[in-house]
Amino acid sequence: MTQTQTAERPDLRAFASLNSADAIELLNTFELDEAVEVAARLPLERAVAIFDRPELQRAGELIAALPEPRATALLEGMADDRATDVLAELDEADRTRLSGTLRRGTREALGKLMRYAPDTAGSIMSTEFVSVPADWSVAETLDHVRRVERSRETIYAIYLLDPHTHALERMLSLRRLIAGEPDASVRSVAQRTTPVAVTPTTDREEVARLIRRHDLLAIPVLDESRHVLGVVTVDDVLDALIAESTEDVQKFGGMEAVTEPYLRIGFLAMIGKRAGWLSALFLGEMLTASAMQHFQDEMAKAIMLTLFIPLIMSSGGNSGSQATSLLIRSLALGEVRLRDWWKVAVREIPTGMVLGSVLGVVAMARIAIWQLAGIYDYGPHWHLLALTVAAALVGIVTFGSLSGSMLPFVLQKLGFDPASASAPFVATLVDVTGLVIYFSIAALILGGTLL
Amino acid sequence: MTQTQTAERPDLRAFASLNSADAIELLNTFELDEAVEVAARLPLERAVAIFDRPELQRAGELIAALPEPRATALLEGMADDRATDVLAELDEADRTRLSGTLRRGTREALGKLMRYAPDTAGSIMSTEFVSVPADWSVAETLDHVRRVERSRETIYAIYLLDPHTHALERMLSLRRLIAGEPDASVRSVAQRTTPVAVTPTTDREEVARLIRRHDLLAIPVLDESRHVLGVVTVDDVLDALIAESTEDVQKFGGMEAVTEPYLRIGFLAMIGKRAGWLSALFLGEMLTASAMQHFQDEMAKAIMLTLFIPLIMSSGGNSGSQATSLLIRSLALGEVRLRDWWKVAVREIPTGMVLGSVLGVVAMARIAIWQLAGIYDYGPHWHLLALTVAAALVGIVTFGSLSGSMLPFVLQKLGFDPASASAPFVATLVDVTGLVIYFSIAALILGGTLL
Repeated sequence: MTQTQTAERPDLRAFASLNSADAIELLNTFELDEAVEVAARLPLERAVAIFDRPELQRAGELIAALPEPRATALLEGMADDRATDVLAELDEADRTRLSGTLRRGTREALGKLMRYAPDTAGSIMSTEFVSVPADWSVAETLDHVRRVERSRETIYAIYLLDPHTHALERMLSLRRLIAGEPDASVRSVAQRTTPVAVTPTTDREEVARLIRRHDLLAIPVLDESRHVLGVVTVDDVLDALIAESTEDVQKFGGMEAVTEPYLRIGFLAMIGKRAGWLSALFLGEMLTASAMQHFQDEMAKAIMLTLFIPLIMSSGGNSGSQATSLLIRSLALGEVRLRDWWKVAVREIPTGMVLGSVLGVVAMARIAIWQLAGIYDYGPHWHLLALTVAAALVGIVTFGSLSGSMLPFVLQKLGFDPASASAPFVATLVDVTGLVIYFSIAALILGGTLL
Repeated sequence: MTQTQTAERPDLRAFASLNSADAIELLNTFELDEAVEVAARLPLERAVAIFDRPELQRAGELIAALPEPRATALLEGMADDRATDVLAELDEADRTRLSGTLRRGTREALGKLMRYAPDTAGSIMSTEFVSVPADWSVAETLDHVRRVERSRETIYAIYLLDPHTHALERMLSLRRLIAGEPDASVRSVAQRTTPVAVTPTTDREEVARLIRRHDLLAIPVLDESRHVLGVVTVDDVLDALIAESTEDVQKFGGMEAVTEPYLRIGFLAMIGKRAGWLSALFLGEMLTASAMQHFQDEMAKAIMLTLFIPLIMSSGGNSGSQATSLLIRSLALGEVRLRDWWKVAVREIPTGMVLGSVLGVVAMARIAIWQLAGIYDYGPHWHLLALTVAAALVGIVTFGSLSGSMLPFVLQKLGFDPASASAPFVATLVDVTGLVIYFSIAALILGGTLL
């Protein structure tokens, strides 16, 4: 990557020497009109390879701005799942205009794909796969594969169809095919088990899970009558996984997931993605103000108590965010199931108590040192104050760990993605309760002395 | 998955009907001794397929507990990168014992692999790949591939070596090979460009990035003299990506990354992973106590002010965590580079101001409503108090967004992984500053009235 970072803008000859990935990276840095010019003048095959990659930014704008014949040639040349994504970026007018120029077959294929919701198998599948009747011979099939090779996104998974119903019967990997006896039937060399498959509406995350789970290079997408509509290949899934983990981190950070690169998101769009959750959390956090109002007499009597409020509250939020991050992933990876919630609770309570005690000891030391070293005077009852803070920490960190670990379960139980649990949300959840725990313990320990 | 969740424990016949993934899932739920018994009695080929998968838990314990001949047969049969991982799980004694029983070739291959650090290309690569002299013909190569097919982890990428130096010359995909003329030389049908490759010490995350960037099914691992040591396949990379995003979420949650499944981590190990960061954050957060001590006269004079401290501080932390989650991913995906830091800063400042203003308006409304509806009396200067809170929110949310977005840059600049920036860390960073901003604005606005 580095060489392109610093590279002078090259003429087309220099472009030819770059591999697609580098060419795309460079193109992304160009002004739109310059990028259009390059896209128009590159050799077609080269341009297709570049437009075929999701890494190419502004693909829609480029296609729309290109001379129509070139735009059409590109769309015809691209993998149809990618072409669909690009068309989807266009405004209605351009989409209709360009679709009109496409070959009938292509137009119909893209039309079908465009009907599937984003993030579903249907929207990321390719309809360019290899399928043959299950009663063909290895030799026949190999010939067929050789002929269609160039026009298929993958040929490593070959789908054997029932000769009459054309429903999917078996999957045959290219490696098994070439290892097979030429005159054996493909059925005899194919996988024994029914192929793992998905439907067009399967979520891309689930598709990724299945491909990974069964070490596949591609997974077929079937309709109700088990006809193969298309295939999702492992490289589509890689991109999907990257996108998913980006969304997960952003949601965990307490905002709506954004799909465009940071520097390309509009200012207002950015505000929109963040303001919603921020305000929601703010409203929740307002309860702390009400709680504090409720305890203001205690605070007035012992201003000392207020000094440790942020410290104690944040510790609850931090332990909660730790527990949440742990459980979000355990649930996503299926290491922990919904029904295991109590096993987790049984672990988190003692964990929280130990962690809280650790912090409690540190806090008592802090207060004792400041007091005895004369850095600050917490008054005659400073040891009781220290005890209150320590006890509160044990209670709040335990509560934080418990609620933080249970939140993902609750979300999944309610049918939400556990990954929509966010660190700020957990913190807010714990803050209010934290205050109540703190002042209750204070009333208990300091009643009659400070309070 | 569901059917195995609820399935009664089946005898071996039932086992035979499950696919590997389901069999593994079931095996993971067994007691160790039961799992050992199954592993000992399954058909060898079946057992190998199961042990070959990283999803199988306790693989080391199982191998160690199995009768030696079966353990040896399994290790010989498994992909050698996986066998290495399993041996690594054993204690010194068992490792030496079992290595001793392996064929010389296998023992040497595993010995080499074990020398590479975890999370490097060397540690996840397989040495079972296909390579041929670049001057062979397509037919010769195809025959060779057919012969060695069963013993290779992948045959979809074929590596062409210089006939004399045996250094890597070109990469040839199986699809191009089968499409080629039988008597053409493989060199003539191979890729024109120099193959993308890595070294044994390349980080697995970088390997994943390259495989994804160039849409590869496998990437060769080369030594200094460009000899092929092994290949990393796309399915190894899928596993690596999953592991990485787990680590990222956990680090962002404010703890050390854990590799074992939640329910298998020892209690003390779990404490260890969490106590460190929690205490570090606690020490940082202690500064809030000092800051509050510093402002205690103000608080004593206007207890009103303290009521909003948690509310204001958490808002700073939340906006910071949003910005951090955005930038961590943008940097990881290369959408934003280190040198773009100022572009980000220039965006985050106005973003923070707008977000802060939104919250400010909400806060003023809250105070006004409570005051006018007589729910709570903030005193004669309540409108000044409302103004103070609103102004503080603008300042703190702006500061939060800015510092939250800059933190990943700072970490990368210092040579750390930007993903080690955590939500709790950002919150702590913002809390102390938040207090100072709040009380400074208060002094400004309320000086002479409340203060």
